[in-house]
Amino acid sequence: MNALQRDFTKRLYFERSRSPINPLKITNVLDGDGRDPKRTERRREIERAVRMDRVFSNENNANLNRVERHTNALAKHLRLMDLAAKLNVDMSDCTLPDFVSLISATADDMPSLLHWGMFVPSCKTLLSDEQQKYWLPRCHDCRVVGCYAQTELGHGSNVRALETEARFESDGKGGAEWILNTPTLTSTKFWPGSLGKTANTAMVIARLIDGEGVDRGVHNFIVPIRDYVTHLPLPGITVGDIGSKIGYNTMDNGFLKLENVRVPLDNMAMRFVKVDGDGRYSKRGGGSATQKIAYLTMMQVRAQIVGMAGLNLAMATTIAVRYSAVRVQGYDAKGKKEVQILNYVQQQHRLFGHLASSYCFWIGGRAILKRLKETERELVEGSGKVRKGDMGDLHASLSALKAYCSGAAADGIEDCRKACGGHGYLVASGFPELLTTYLQNPTVEGDNHMLPQQVCKVLLKLLRSAVEGGEGAVEKDWRGCDCYYLVGEVREEEGGVEGGVEGMEGLLRLFKARAGRLLVRLGERLEQLVGEEGMDMAEAWNLCLVEMARLSKAHAVVLLLKHFVQGLELFEAAERRIMEVLCRLWALQIVERDAGDFVGVVGEDVIEGVRDNVVRLLGEVRKSAVVLVDAFDFTDFRLKSALGRFDGNVYPDIMKAAMKDTMNEKEVWEPVVVKGHIGVRGAKL
Amino acid sequence: MNALQRDFTKRLYFERSRSPINPLKITNVLDGDGRDPKRTERRREIERAVRMDRVFSNENNANLNRVERHTNALAKHLRLMDLAAKLNVDMSDCTLPDFVSLISATADDMPSLLHWGMFVPSCKTLLSDEQQKYWLPRCHDCRVVGCYAQTELGHGSNVRALETEARFESDGKGGAEWILNTPTLTSTKFWPGSLGKTANTAMVIARLIDGEGVDRGVHNFIVPIRDYVTHLPLPGITVGDIGSKIGYNTMDNGFLKLENVRVPLDNMAMRFVKVDGDGRYSKRGGGSATQKIAYLTMMQVRAQIVGMAGLNLAMATTIAVRYSAVRVQGYDAKGKKEVQILNYVQQQHRLFGHLASSYCFWIGGRAILKRLKETERELVEGSGKVRKGDMGDLHASLSALKAYCSGAAADGIEDCRKACGGHGYLVASGFPELLTTYLQNPTVEGDNHMLPQQVCKVLLKLLRSAVEGGEGAVEKDWRGCDCYYLVGEVREEEGGVEGGVEGMEGLLRLFKARAGRLLVRLGERLEQLVGEEGMDMAEAWNLCLVEMARLSKAHAVVLLLKHFVQGLELFEAAERRIMEVLCRLWALQIVERDAGDFVGVVGEDVIEGVRDNVVRLLGEVRKSAVVLVDAFDFTDFRLKSALGRFDGNVYPDIMKAAMKDTMNEKEVWEPVVVKGHIGVRGAKL
Repeated sequence: MNALQRDFTKRLYFERSRSPINPLKITNVLDGDGRDPKRTERRREIERAVRMDRVFSNENNANLNRVERHTNALAKHLRLMDLAAKLNVDMSDCTLPDFVSLISATADDMPSLLHWGMFVPSCKTLLSDEQQKYWLPRCHDCRVVGCYAQTELGHGSNVRALETEARFESDGKGGAEWILNTPTLTSTKFWPGSLGKTANTAMVIARLIDGEGVDRGVHNFIVPIRDYVTHLPLPGITVGDIGSKIGYNTMDNGFLKLENVRVPLDNMAMRFVKVDGDGRYSKRGGGSATQKIAYLTMMQVRAQIVGMAGLNLAMATTIAVRYSAVRVQGYDAKGKKEVQILNYVQQQHRLFGHLASSYCFWIGGRAILKRLKETERELVEGSGKVRKGDMGDLHASLSALKAYCSGAAADGIEDCRKACGGHGYLVASGFPELLTTYLQNPTVEGDNHMLPQQVCKVLLKLLRSAVEGGEGAVEKDWRGCDCYYLVGEVREEEGGVEGGVEGMEGLLRLFKARAGRLLVRLGERLEQLVGEEGMDMAEAWNLCLVEMARLSKAHAVVLLLKHFVQGLELFEAAERRIMEVLCRLWALQIVERDAGDFVGVVGEDVIEGVRDNVVRLLGEVRKSAVVLVDAFDFTDFRLKSALGRFDGNVYPDIMKAAMKDTMNEKEVWEPVVVKGHIGVRGAKL
Repeated sequence: MNALQRDFTKRLYFERSRSPINPLKITNVLDGDGRDPKRTERRREIERAVRMDRVFSNENNANLNRVERHTNALAKHLRLMDLAAKLNVDMSDCTLPDFVSLISATADDMPSLLHWGMFVPSCKTLLSDEQQKYWLPRCHDCRVVGCYAQTELGHGSNVRALETEARFESDGKGGAEWILNTPTLTSTKFWPGSLGKTANTAMVIARLIDGEGVDRGVHNFIVPIRDYVTHLPLPGITVGDIGSKIGYNTMDNGFLKLENVRVPLDNMAMRFVKVDGDGRYSKRGGGSATQKIAYLTMMQVRAQIVGMAGLNLAMATTIAVRYSAVRVQGYDAKGKKEVQILNYVQQQHRLFGHLASSYCFWIGGRAILKRLKETERELVEGSGKVRKGDMGDLHASLSALKAYCSGAAADGIEDCRKACGGHGYLVASGFPELLTTYLQNPTVEGDNHMLPQQVCKVLLKLLRSAVEGGEGAVEKDWRGCDCYYLVGEVREEEGGVEGGVEGMEGLLRLFKARAGRLLVRLGERLEQLVGEEGMDMAEAWNLCLVEMARLSKAHAVVLLLKHFVQGLELFEAAERRIMEVLCRLWALQIVERDAGDFVGVVGEDVIEGVRDNVVRLLGEVRKSAVVLVDAFDFTDFRLKSALGRFDGNVYPDIMKAAMKDTMNEKEVWEPVVVKGHIGVRGAKL
């Protein structure tokens, strides 16, 4: 080992030695809801069990093709089931910490993920109690492996436009069946995860045509698609993988064509509706609380995306911050010693914002998931504490947060990758898989560019209630909701932001004022276009879409900052101090970036001052940057990155990965069509 | 073909029929420098010849592994050489239109690209005339296939820190050799394109240790690395591919270790320096003009990156705009007809800005390349017209433009991909290869986050000259330079922007004022930190890096807008009108995005007004959007995209790609480690 090598392996340890922060105390907060170290120990136990098992090795992933990655992952799935039993991990609820720890510990994509993540939850939500008794035990031991087949080739997630049909047919003797068809090319089910090769059963979303031939809109049907013994497609079923994607290729997103596929009457999900043996369609009990609970279950996925945005971005910043502490470029003032990249303010400006966002989304994601669970509990208990505005408010919050966090994380991961220079382009850096797999998140579960409309519909309702509603009406329906702060803003009851943005209180006021102003303007603009200019609402709505995106972001920022500030309470003194710096940095960088939004809200001098303030905060974060990423507690096994190694010994790892590439299996590859070595062509030099 | 299918294949033709624009007239301008249709015809002839040759098929690319893609591309390289001869394409200069057309026509990455693009140009620049006589003919017929081996594993492109050594050794009989070594792991040459498998020769950048043992800094050496007959590595050479990357995997970026590799004395590039048989090092004639010309040659790569940013972004917008005209989602006001995505203002806001940028960068790239070529000609002719500031100015312009355009194109391509929803995630969409291959551009040839310092060094020099220089000094040195506008700004001789931003003139003034203000502030801030706060310059400089990035962007925007406006002259009336709309949209979206920069430059009402104006312009672009992407004239062969097909028949193509995926070669894949079908495990349902 030469001098330079010895040097760069020492850098991270030096960084760690000079920080006053104890990373484990932060880890404990991130793992649990408070400072309980037990949750961290349990997670580490689960991760260790996975890491020690050779089946879970990811070492040669870069040189495997799709089929090899997929079949490897199937093997991992089977081993994971055994491990779950051994470690006593409850697989029945995909939001439980142990489940999340086990799945994440593999650092690979499980083709069975949508079974646990979508199929089982939708069975619990949509099937009647009797139906659940049949299907859930079979799901649990994976005799049934399911997927959720909604989107179609020509229609994305526009549920109203789905073409797949399930037609009621009586056998005239009291028995009845559903006949399922995808009548057109564009109605081919397309995209569902786990559908292509893994699942033997699909929850198919189809238009229900009842016994009288009436189209009752889309409903859910459990359709066996592969033989439960041979795993071959059943009659009338054409199923397969949809082809290579930019990432996530271990997963078999699939297509499904149905041609007169028959399933029993009882394979329709009958919790909320019922079709009897004569084909009569009727709504069923369950009540509004049960429907609300079902809705909350579906919303969990968005809440998980918020938290996972934090986690994925945390992985990217861990790699980038560590490598930036190892890597040197350029010279110091005396022109002798090369400078750690991490000392450049420009690099700090790129990375520390993402570091702050990682914590912010992680904490915010947990807070919103907690609220979902609490609301669910209130509904189950019938406590009556769930207000009229709550469901809409949760919908608005989750839509705004999902769009904001998944967008910021996708951009942020790529930014961290670029911040690693050329080596960030290597698969060995860990970024390509992290990034390309993550890139699905801005699109799935509501496209980030469509969600703002959902947010604005709710906020406009609040606006109307605040302005037009009778005395106390808005308070009764909305007090305690996430969006309630907007009432004061639109009524202009809140003080100005003249106090400046020195404290967190002032910053939160600033963001609230921005959101309020954007909401009032949106309302006025719509009114103007419809009322004064005589447009129909659809046209006016369309012209306001860009403004809606702004409002949605502004609302998300208020919620995130609120959760971030509240989350600070969980840390002990030394750690809280640095988390406060991160929180402040996060907020100020938004003011810096969106400065145009604050014109007229605060003075020009305040906006100008923010830039200097940001640079000052970067200097404070710099001192503990490495420890702050250590605190995320990702093992090398999970990061899969030569650049992000805990010990900083990056260069031998890069070379090792290079030597293993299939391109190096032969010294000379010959062109496949025209024979003869390139550069030779028969002649001597 | 069902009704929906018939419908979506009609949509693009309907779009085309209702636009008053003739796309071919725009194509002619883009192809040539004016309206000459011959250049378009020639390009199409070359593309046709490539397309018709089965060797160049890209049809199964998605299912080939790295080695297969690479060896296929080697075959294409050989066929390309024949085709060049047949079509009379001059391969001697990689900036000639015919060369560019031929390489682009393959719609694949040639592993020999760096031979033409870096090795040959550097031979022409750095070798003495006698040396060129030996090497260039061998390069031309590819007996020698070269690469440019500069970057090292531990050092990126920090040339001063390179560790590779070339040590002079005399044989005592008047003969002499160079002994080359990469003495450490970190000095392993790493990244050079074409090095891994394709090249048999490398231009190695190494520290020259002369006969007296003095380190003369980095110089260039031609080093044969593979046997010219067997293509096997030569003694002392370890060479190979650096492993999989996020994209560009057809290219064999390579690593190279040198262990006492001996080459003749004359393999050192001796145009500007000389080492004689006794190891005496001396500077050589050639004069400052020759050195400048050499420098200009190296700068061509950056100019090409600017133009290619336009071209790559144009591909992305072509796919996204066409697919957005084909794809429907949601319902119109009457709730009956599904709406084309392209009619949503939010989608227009995303895509049309990138459409405008495509034109802007394309036109700007050509303008800056033209200026480079003209400067070169002036130097060769010794006209004396090249001013003192010219070289620095060109350096600043190219650095600013390279950083701005490649960054915006990378973000823009990804944004276009996201704008295609789920299907944009498919390899069949064409985006994954387009994006991941493009993503190297923000990093290569000067990292986008390092370049602003280069820009600001020059602009600060101008500032000093403008403020401190004697009467007329700044005019003499800098008049006519790109950055000359800043003189008026920093001297506050220019009028305000009170006139508003209605015309292009006002907008240009606004951007100039912003750049001027940022430059003055940067100067003041540095002075304050060094003068008042007593920092050393390196420390002060570091604290200003974020501001420098802003200034560099602001400068790039001024140059791009200037070129865009000048480029409008090339179009005929009808086409010019829509190009003016695009130009205006491009500028206003920047004001919208960077609003904070304009606070205090123009009134709040102006900034507010911009948002409405943007929405209005989007409506105008909408009418001709499809024709405006048609005008880029990319064939389906070049786009390789199911979504971007000229005829809009996207869905059958997506399905076709899915069916061909290797995952569908077998109905059932079994886990490789644990046997037994997933979901079965021996038990019946």
